[in-house]
Amino acid sequence: MSQTVTEVEVHDVRFPTSEELDGSDAMNPDPDYSAAYVVLRTDAGDEGHGLCFTIGRGNDVVAAAVEALRPYLVGRPAPRTAAGLAALHRELTHDSQLRWLGPEKGVMHMAAGAVVNAAWDLAATSAGLPVWEFLASMTPEELVSLVDFRYLTDALTPDEALAILRAAEPGRAERAERLRAGGYPAYTTTPGWLGYDDAKLVRLAKEAVADGFGQIKLKVGADLDDDVRRLRLAREAVGPAVRIAVDANQRWDVAEAVRWMAALAPYDPYWIEEPTSPDDVLGHAAVRAGQPVKVATGEHIANRVVFKQLLQAGAVDFVQIDAARVAGVNENLAILLLAAKYGVPVCPHAGGVGLCELVQHLAMFDYVAVSGTKEDRVIEYVDHLHEHFTDPAVVENGHYTAPSAPGFSARMHPESLAAHRYPDGPVWQARRAAQEATQ
Amino acid sequence: MSQTVTEVEVHDVRFPTSEELDGSDAMNPDPDYSAAYVVLRTDAGDEGHGLCFTIGRGNDVVAAAVEALRPYLVGRPAPRTAAGLAALHRELTHDSQLRWLGPEKGVMHMAAGAVVNAAWDLAATSAGLPVWEFLASMTPEELVSLVDFRYLTDALTPDEALAILRAAEPGRAERAERLRAGGYPAYTTTPGWLGYDDAKLVRLAKEAVADGFGQIKLKVGADLDDDVRRLRLAREAVGPAVRIAVDANQRWDVAEAVRWMAALAPYDPYWIEEPTSPDDVLGHAAVRAGQPVKVATGEHIANRVVFKQLLQAGAVDFVQIDAARVAGVNENLAILLLAAKYGVPVCPHAGGVGLCELVQHLAMFDYVAVSGTKEDRVIEYVDHLHEHFTDPAVVENGHYTAPSAPGFSARMHPESLAAHRYPDGPVWQARRAAQEATQ
Repeated sequence: MSQTVTEVEVHDVRFPTSEELDGSDAMNPDPDYSAAYVVLRTDAGDEGHGLCFTIGRGNDVVAAAVEALRPYLVGRPAPRTAAGLAALHRELTHDSQLRWLGPEKGVMHMAAGAVVNAAWDLAATSAGLPVWEFLASMTPEELVSLVDFRYLTDALTPDEALAILRAAEPGRAERAERLRAGGYPAYTTTPGWLGYDDAKLVRLAKEAVADGFGQIKLKVGADLDDDVRRLRLAREAVGPAVRIAVDANQRWDVAEAVRWMAALAPYDPYWIEEPTSPDDVLGHAAVRAGQPVKVATGEHIANRVVFKQLLQAGAVDFVQIDAARVAGVNENLAILLLAAKYGVPVCPHAGGVGLCELVQHLAMFDYVAVSGTKEDRVIEYVDHLHEHFTDPAVVENGHYTAPSAPGFSARMHPESLAAHRYPDGPVWQARRAAQEATQ
Repeated sequence: MSQTVTEVEVHDVRFPTSEELDGSDAMNPDPDYSAAYVVLRTDAGDEGHGLCFTIGRGNDVVAAAVEALRPYLVGRPAPRTAAGLAALHRELTHDSQLRWLGPEKGVMHMAAGAVVNAAWDLAATSAGLPVWEFLASMTPEELVSLVDFRYLTDALTPDEALAILRAAEPGRAERAERLRAGGYPAYTTTPGWLGYDDAKLVRLAKEAVADGFGQIKLKVGADLDDDVRRLRLAREAVGPAVRIAVDANQRWDVAEAVRWMAALAPYDPYWIEEPTSPDDVLGHAAVRAGQPVKVATGEHIANRVVFKQLLQAGAVDFVQIDAARVAGVNENLAILLLAAKYGVPVCPHAGGVGLCELVQHLAMFDYVAVSGTKEDRVIEYVDHLHEHFTDPAVVENGHYTAPSAPGFSARMHPESLAAHRYPDGPVWQARRAAQEATQ
């Protein structure tokens, strides 16, 4: 039965994470992890939840951008099928006036992503499937129809995408079963925040290995001597077999990245993440060519057109999709197909608020129905803020457990939404009272 | 004497231009030209005006983004010098939390541009100079200090920028005098909107030549047969000596752009503008290599990092800066210096609301103090909405007249702001009443 969207709620939700220096890195010294959180409601009483992750200020600007998309939602049929989800995605990203504010980048695009993902949550919940299985239940033709191929055809045509999906079709059921049994490999960033001292770094690195992680990640880029010392300490703590990725969060120019990574190379970093501007395709290619460490990026890549070029230019060894920066599942499907075409592993960015919950579905779908492999693939994990979600990501023995509940796993508890409402929720009122008391 | 910013006003101003199909092109069928219009006020009673041009929906989202920048303005000294304007620009674009919403792209970056330009209007007005002269009164060292070189140094170092500016220093006064005497060449897009019929196109093309324009521009990209006919008619109307640029407004994929331009080439188009996605550096390079017509882009390029790559990749023959998309004068100065380094002419995008007014200052400053030449350089002109400005751009005999009034020329009449306030100004109330009457 067809449902109509009757309501779009937008919540400005923020967590005062800057108090603990969790999430601190060379470019983001004091993030307050936040979400512009979207709820679609239908006349049948169903709900779809989605979110855009931000790090504090400006979360209200994203909320305003979601409001601008309301005319495409309220009073219209709730999309339930590939065709409906394809149409909604195109409408949101092709509005001829809103497009001027990008195109397809920044605040407006992130807001579209939150809405598109909320629609996927609604559709998958209605279908009684977790999003990864809902996606994997679609035919190759349906999946191709979800993708906006505009600006992609010099790298990937619809026919090529179809061929990739058809080639992976035979093993779908078997791989889904393997996922349910063994999960999907994770790595942890918990030890490596820049605000942590050496002792905490070493302790958390050892704990990560004991917890079964085969890869950890360290933030770098503020001070070279510090980075050499921290990477050395981490390497001593975990031994030679555990992979240690490092992440500069866009701190460097090209020459600086090359010089810095040459100095860190003796401690065998597995990849250098975000060495420079996420807009700099040619810069990433130069960094990759100029030093021995593999290059990863993606969490700040604005859209599929930039991912396309990173692959065309041979600029990256790993594609780090983010569930909530591009225009939702549809655009991430385009990026998964591009990565498959170029044979580059996808290692999703996560952490923040709800990003682990969301992106696990995309990586698992990729394994089941696109790339067909987990080789050299790993999803980021940060053990942080999951308690606010009704179906939190579960990582055990270094692996994400395959979600079994219907939907996209990114619904927050109503009490969490209320407590962290900005600026007037009780958590923020208490914080302001405490600040005033110490002044 | 130091002044303090006491107030930041943001106006949501929209013009119902979609009624006339002015501004219609292959991607923007029905724009309502709009501005998120910013006024800074100081305790000395001075004002600085700036704006972000949009085409309607979402103008309120940009206004919300300006509001998010308020803490960097109110209660702080109004910047009056290169040092102050450099500091403000860096603060607005480097806020560690707001940066997550870009970085340096889309709504948040456009809002920063409106604020930066308002600060330049304020500073130049205080100095009693039009912005182009205010800029040209600064030393090479001061100008270099205005630029954020992060992510640029693989293409342009501060020392190289300084050398470019020093080389142009000797002739500054003479070139400024020549500008005052002869103006700066313009081209007109007035004849070429896609919504105009053939007769109107031919009539307006002939009028443009009679008015002294040496270049006109046609919108293309919706239908190839139509474009061939319209370009043929325009060529017959203006003769072989007048340049006819064509503009696809991002309509094509790479192969389509190559095919389309091969078909138009017999009518000698001067450049193809925005053949594909503004994010697609490699795509532009492929289009440039694949067909005989020169390539131009820039009005939708998000920031200096993408301009840098277009130049590094040899992807463009013309750099089309826009005054109000990147982070204001400071970032455009970076782009002018990059273009000078690579020897590529800058032909600014204009039109819209206030873009002619703003960008003429940048082109004229470029001539006086950066590139030192007007060769193959031309500023877009559209004769539209100038009556709303107190110091409108003046084009005579195909040339922009050098502004002589202090400031950035982009202050609107208070009556225009009030009349076009969205959604409750009288123009919009009347429009809604008319629409209801016809339903």
